Amino acid sequence: MNEFFKVLKNDSMSRARTGNMVTAHGIIKTPVFMPVGTKATIKAIDHQNLSGMGCEIILGNLYHLYLQPGIELIKKAGGLHGFMNWDKSILTDSGGFQVFSLNKIRKINDDGVEFKSVIDGSLHFFTPEDVIRYQADMGSDIMMALDECIPFTEDAVYTGAAAKRTLKWAEISRKTAESINSTRGKNEMARVFGIVQGGFIKSIRKFCAESVSGMDFDGIAIGGLSVGEERQKTLEILQYTSEFTDRLKPLYFMGLGDPVGLADAIYHGVDMFDCVMPTRISRMGSAFTKNGKINIKNSRFEQDFGPIEESCSCHTCKNYSRAYIRHLYKSREILSSMLLTIHNLQFIFDLVENARFHINNGTYVKFREDFKKNYL
Amino acid sequence: MNEFFKVLKNDSMSRARTGNMVTAHGIIKTPVFMPVGTKATIKAIDHQNLSGMGCEIILGNLYHLYLQPGIELIKKAGGLHGFMNWDKSILTDSGGFQVFSLNKIRKINDDGVEFKSVIDGSLHFFTPEDVIRYQADMGSDIMMALDECIPFTEDAVYTGAAAKRTLKWAEISRKTAESINSTRGKNEMARVFGIVQGGFIKSIRKFCAESVSGMDFDGIAIGGLSVGEERQKTLEILQYTSEFTDRLKPLYFMGLGDPVGLADAIYHGVDMFDCVMPTRISRMGSAFTKNGKINIKNSRFEQDFGPIEESCSCHTCKNYSRAYIRHLYKSREILSSMLLTIHNLQFIFDLVENARFHINNGTYVKFREDFKKNYL
Repeated sequence: MNEFFKVLKNDSMSRARTGNMVTAHGIIKTPVFMPVGTKATIKAIDHQNLSGMGCEIILGNLYHLYLQPGIELIKKAGGLHGFMNWDKSILTDSGGFQVFSLNKIRKINDDGVEFKSVIDGSLHFFTPEDVIRYQADMGSDIMMALDECIPFTEDAVYTGAAAKRTLKWAEISRKTAESINSTRGKNEMARVFGIVQGGFIKSIRKFCAESVSGMDFDGIAIGGLSVGEERQKTLEILQYTSEFTDRLKPLYFMGLGDPVGLADAIYHGVDMFDCVMPTRISRMGSAFTKNGKINIKNSRFEQDFGPIEESCSCHTCKNYSRAYIRHLYKSREILSSMLLTIHNLQFIFDLVENARFHINNGTYVKFREDFKKNYL
Repeated sequence: MNEFFKVLKNDSMSRARTGNMVTAHGIIKTPVFMPVGTKATIKAIDHQNLSGMGCEIILGNLYHLYLQPGIELIKKAGGLHGFMNWDKSILTDSGGFQVFSLNKIRKINDDGVEFKSVIDGSLHFFTPEDVIRYQADMGSDIMMALDECIPFTEDAVYTGAAAKRTLKWAEISRKTAESINSTRGKNEMARVFGIVQGGFIKSIRKFCAESVSGMDFDGIAIGGLSVGEERQKTLEILQYTSEFTDRLKPLYFMGLGDPVGLADAIYHGVDMFDCVMPTRISRMGSAFTKNGKINIKNSRFEQDFGPIEESCSCHTCKNYSRAYIRHLYKSREILSSMLLTIHNLQFIFDLVENARFHINNGTYVKFREDFKKNYL
C-alpha cells in the first residue's frame, strides 16, 4: 500500500483522477497547482495569505536558494519552512532546469554539472547526491532528482544521451534519499520524485517512463516539455508518455500553469503542476478571466468600475475595480502586481478545485469542454 | 463650539495635546500620522490592511491624481473613497508643493500657477478656486488651500511676496469651500485648511500665522519647513509659529514623519502629520526600531532569526525574521518592501498612539525624553 499517495476517484471518460498526497506538513488534494517561490517567496504576495486561498504546497528552487542565501543559512533557520515561515508542504526543484537555462558556460559529465553563479560568477559543481542532500538539508517535503534538461531538438543521439544520464542520476538520487530517510522517523520522510526526460522522441520517452516507473520513487515527473514547442506537440508527448508511467504514483508535469494547459493535462492524467506564469503575468498587468486573459492596461477598462471577474471571490475582486487596477498599473504602483497576483493565483486554485469537484462528480470531460469554450 | 475639532487634554508641561477630529468618514484621534497615498495607493501596502493597524486617515495628492487618472474619472468612480475603496477619512494636498518641487518650467502670478505635466509634458493652470473644486470633486474630507512653496532662502523680499500671495489664495480658497459647502448637508461638509508660509523669517511667519488664524478655516497647516534645513531650525520656527496660531483649530505640520521629529513636533503642539518617509525607507531596506533605524541589508542581520523588533505586534514581526527580510531585500523581492512598509507604518502608528496615551496620562514629557534617549 502506498502511504504517500492515494487515488480517490478515476474518471471513467479520461485519465483524470483525484487523489491525496500526505507529507510531513499536511494532506494535499490532487490535482494540485503549486505556486513557484523561487527565492523563498512567491513574488508580490505575502505567503501568509496563501493558505486561506486554498494553497497546500508551494515550490522552492534549489539552484537559487543554494546561491542565495545558501543552504547553511536555511538549515540554521530551521529549514525552508522555518526560514520563510510556511507550515504547509514544500516541493523543491533540483535545479536541473535552472543550471541549463540560466548558464551559458557550464560543463556536464556523468558525475554532475558545473555552473557559474548568476550572482557573482563563481563556479559550482552539483552531483546528483549533492542535489538530494541539499534539498533534504532544507527540509523539503518532496525532492526532485537532478536531470539533464535539453532545449527543443530532434537530435535522437543527443536526446538519448541526456536521457540515459538522467536515468543514471535518478538511481543515484533515489539511493541517496533512501539513505537519508533511513535515519528519519516515518512522519519525517522526504519524498523523492524521478524525472522522465526524452525530449520529443517517443521511443526514448517510453524507455524513460518505464525506467523511472521501475525505480522505487514516490512520484514521477515529466520534464523537458513546454520548452517552446507547439501546445499540440506538448499534449501528444504527454499523453504518450503518461501511458508508460506507474499510475500508482502521482504524476507531476513540470512547468505548466496556463488555464487551458492545466485543464488538458489533468484530462491526460496529470496530478501536479507548477509554473511561474500566473505570478509573472500579474506583474505585466494581465489577469485570467473565465472568458480568457485580459490586459488591464487596455483602454476599454479605463471607466470599468466592476471587478476583474464578477463571480470571483478573491480579495482583489471583492475590493477593487478594473479601472483602479488599471490606474495602478499605468502609474507603476506595486499594489498593481500585488492585487493581480492574488487574483491570478486564486483563479488557478479555483480552476483546479473545480477540476477535482468535476472528476469526483463524473463530469470532468464536460467541465473541461465548457471551460475551454469560454476561455478560448 | 467647533464641531470639527475638539481638544480632549492639554499637557501641562508642554504644548502637546490630544483631540478628536470628526469628518464625514469617521472620528480621528489626534495627534495623528497620515500615510501618504500620492497616486491613490500607499506604496507597497494594500490599504485594506491599514484600518486594522490603527490608521484613521490617509493623504492623497491633487497634483498627481489630476494628471493621472484625472479628476473626472475619480468623480465617476464615486470619488477617491470609491475609486480606491477606502471608507475612512482622506485629506488631499493642494498640489502646491508638487507644482513647485517637480516643475522646472512654471509660471506663477496672482491668479495661480502654470505647470508642466510630468507624464506627457502638457501645460496646465491651477487657480486657487480650481484646486478647491477639484479636491471637493474627489470627495476629500479635508482640503488644502493652494500655497506658494519656496525653497530654503534668507531673502525676505521673496519670502514676503510668496507669503502674501499664499494669504490671498487662502482667502479665495476659503470662500470657494464655503460656497461648495453651502450646497451640502451638515454631515457631508468638506473641511478646508489654510497654510502658513513665511520661510525662515519670524516676522513673516508671525504675520501669516495670525492672518490664517483670523480666517474662518477648519484647521491650520504649517508649510515650507523640513525643506532641507537643520532640524534645530525647523523646531525653532515651528515653536515660534505655533504660538500665533489659533489653538482651537487642529495644527498640521506638512511633510514631517521621522520618529524623533514626530515626538518633538507633538511636544510643540502639532496635531497632524504626513510624510512619505516611513514608506520610502521601507523600499530602501530600512526599518524603525526603538533603538533607532536599522538597514536590513547590514551583514550583522545575516543569521539574525529574531523579528525586526521583539516587542512589535505588527504582521511582519509576528511572522518573519531579520535574516529572511534581509534575504528578500538582497534578492530584490517585492515582499521585502511589503513587509518593511507594514512594520514601519505600524511603528509610527504605535508611536503616535503612545504619545496620545502619555498626553492623556500627563506623562508626555518623560515619554518623549525616554523615547529620544533610546532612539538616538
